[in-house]
Amino acid sequence: MTDLPDHNRQMVLRERPKGNVSDDNFELVTGPVPTAGAGELLLRNRWLSFDPAQRGWINDIRSYVPPVAIGEPMRAYGLGEVVTSDVEGISVGQLVHCKIDWQDYVVVDPSKDATFEAVPDGMSDPTLLLGVLGLTGLTAYFGMTEIGRPGEGDTVLVTAAAGATGSVAGQIARIKGASRVIGTAGAADKRAWVTDVAGFDDCLDHYDEKVRRKLFDAAPKGYNVIYDNVGGSLLDACIFNAAVKARIVLCGAISTGYRPEKPEVGLHFYQLLTTRSARMEGFLVSNYEDQYARARADLAGWVADGSLHHELDVLEGLENAPEGLRRLFAGKNLGKQALKLSA
Amino acid sequence: MTDLPDHNRQMVLRERPKGNVSDDNFELVTGPVPTAGAGELLLRNRWLSFDPAQRGWINDIRSYVPPVAIGEPMRAYGLGEVVTSDVEGISVGQLVHCKIDWQDYVVVDPSKDATFEAVPDGMSDPTLLLGVLGLTGLTAYFGMTEIGRPGEGDTVLVTAAAGATGSVAGQIARIKGASRVIGTAGAADKRAWVTDVAGFDDCLDHYDEKVRRKLFDAAPKGYNVIYDNVGGSLLDACIFNAAVKARIVLCGAISTGYRPEKPEVGLHFYQLLTTRSARMEGFLVSNYEDQYARARADLAGWVADGSLHHELDVLEGLENAPEGLRRLFAGKNLGKQALKLSA
Repeated sequence: MTDLPDHNRQMVLRERPKGNVSDDNFELVTGPVPTAGAGELLLRNRWLSFDPAQRGWINDIRSYVPPVAIGEPMRAYGLGEVVTSDVEGISVGQLVHCKIDWQDYVVVDPSKDATFEAVPDGMSDPTLLLGVLGLTGLTAYFGMTEIGRPGEGDTVLVTAAAGATGSVAGQIARIKGASRVIGTAGAADKRAWVTDVAGFDDCLDHYDEKVRRKLFDAAPKGYNVIYDNVGGSLLDACIFNAAVKARIVLCGAISTGYRPEKPEVGLHFYQLLTTRSARMEGFLVSNYEDQYARARADLAGWVADGSLHHELDVLEGLENAPEGLRRLFAGKNLGKQALKLSA
Repeated sequence: MTDLPDHNRQMVLRERPKGNVSDDNFELVTGPVPTAGAGELLLRNRWLSFDPAQRGWINDIRSYVPPVAIGEPMRAYGLGEVVTSDVEGISVGQLVHCKIDWQDYVVVDPSKDATFEAVPDGMSDPTLLLGVLGLTGLTAYFGMTEIGRPGEGDTVLVTAAAGATGSVAGQIARIKGASRVIGTAGAADKRAWVTDVAGFDDCLDHYDEKVRRKLFDAAPKGYNVIYDNVGGSLLDACIFNAAVKARIVLCGAISTGYRPEKPEVGLHFYQLLTTRSARMEGFLVSNYEDQYARARADLAGWVADGSLHHELDVLEGLENAPEGLRRLFAGKNLGKQALKLSA
């Protein structure tokens, strides 16, 4: 094993952030490359994936997963290249997707990571597994098809429509027969991408003070499906514009920063859910783990036939990992935020 | 028709209330008794039913029904006795349930009122149609069985559990197999009734400042079904204590007063619906109109076999009708608020 490196860099959590993450919340430390044991792989990490849920993992509160501890490398998923393998069917040089964390090297036991998978032979672009065929694409798929359930005649609203999940969710609604698909996004270039590339019928500025009124003007009869990634006052404006029997999919709440403090902006229009017989429902993509294969086959088919457009927003270098997470909450990413680790 | 009276008293809307209703918002006026035409009935009204939704009907905002106009008698349902009949199968002296409004006499065309029904022959207590076998009982039935769907092992929470709907909803949860049924109510005598008569396992004081913590202590694993009649900060405390995959039934929001102003208290814990894969859903009982007969048969059976307890909270005299509505929002009623009209 003459080609084994002699050190491993890790970006560890130094302190819990209060608001959006800053570089000071993390620290780049150097240590030995870990040693893989029986049934394990040593990976050289190649690509990191960024997801809003990661912000929640560094709050010191109980949630569906335990928080990252101070001094531990930041928890993350991504693509790694196999350096050594004691796992049948996995060869040196192969790319795999699993929990790799913010570091150069990682030891993985595939039998202990439910998210582990080898990149299929012949996959033209393995980074598809970071976004449209990865957790964000699957999240969009199950949230829209299992909870939103748009059908013919439905008007669908997707917030943060230029994001990795929102962009896919809206396009799935169209594929499933929705009559109109409307998005919201921030910057003008992102809104242009949502309509011109992703093919939404319209995309409103979700920072517009009159967004509630604009949402009404865009669909005076209300929205039958609302796929929300933003939360806060924008979600409240969405509820105000919900149609009778609307399904509101609570996917994320990027505007709240996933912070442990009680959010300042509460929902005020929830009573309208009663008079409109409407539903608001949250979910975790892992609820549908047993259906990932079917979902991914659908998603891959739509990518292949050109009906599903997607973007990868790429940073480079482990030292920029905090910036990757920060960009999500600053609304800077177009499509899936990823980071390519230096060779 | 020598027994026909010569005047009809009506309690009409004089001005739209700002907060809870006051006597000044209404005015008792006297006019001629209306004349029934072809296919119509003249009723002498006997019992008025009070429901929180009525407060919404006197706000000047669009909703699922148009608002009551200034100068019109207050819209209400109740029981009337047939004085004259030009309707086949309906005889003088029979009691019927329909929209009767706040007045002594009303003319009704049964073919134009979907809520019209004759009190069945042999029904021992026609006032059952005001509450447990009426719209409040049906509301509890469909909200709990169609949306809450409690099953074995489930812990169920019902807010305003001493009210006409909450008391029935909690007992239905028990009948449907819920393991534990916990309520909230205000006054101590109401809480005692909820546990001692309605058979809930516990009933918390929903005015307690620490109600969020008390709800946790009563069910540390969370509530699988939450049937909410109160809204506001109590609903927020309920969401905080929702179990994974909880179903939160939005039936009413009595704490908000059904007022048109943007409610001051917003929901802050809605993000937990995502991490807990929980659902919050509103409904109108009229969505289930085609299933009323089946529901009422179930409810009547449970009343008959002693598994469903109910109360009628009785006022007397048309002049006290505003007080009937006011009592609902002051949390004074135990069970169904009704008013007996003077002979």
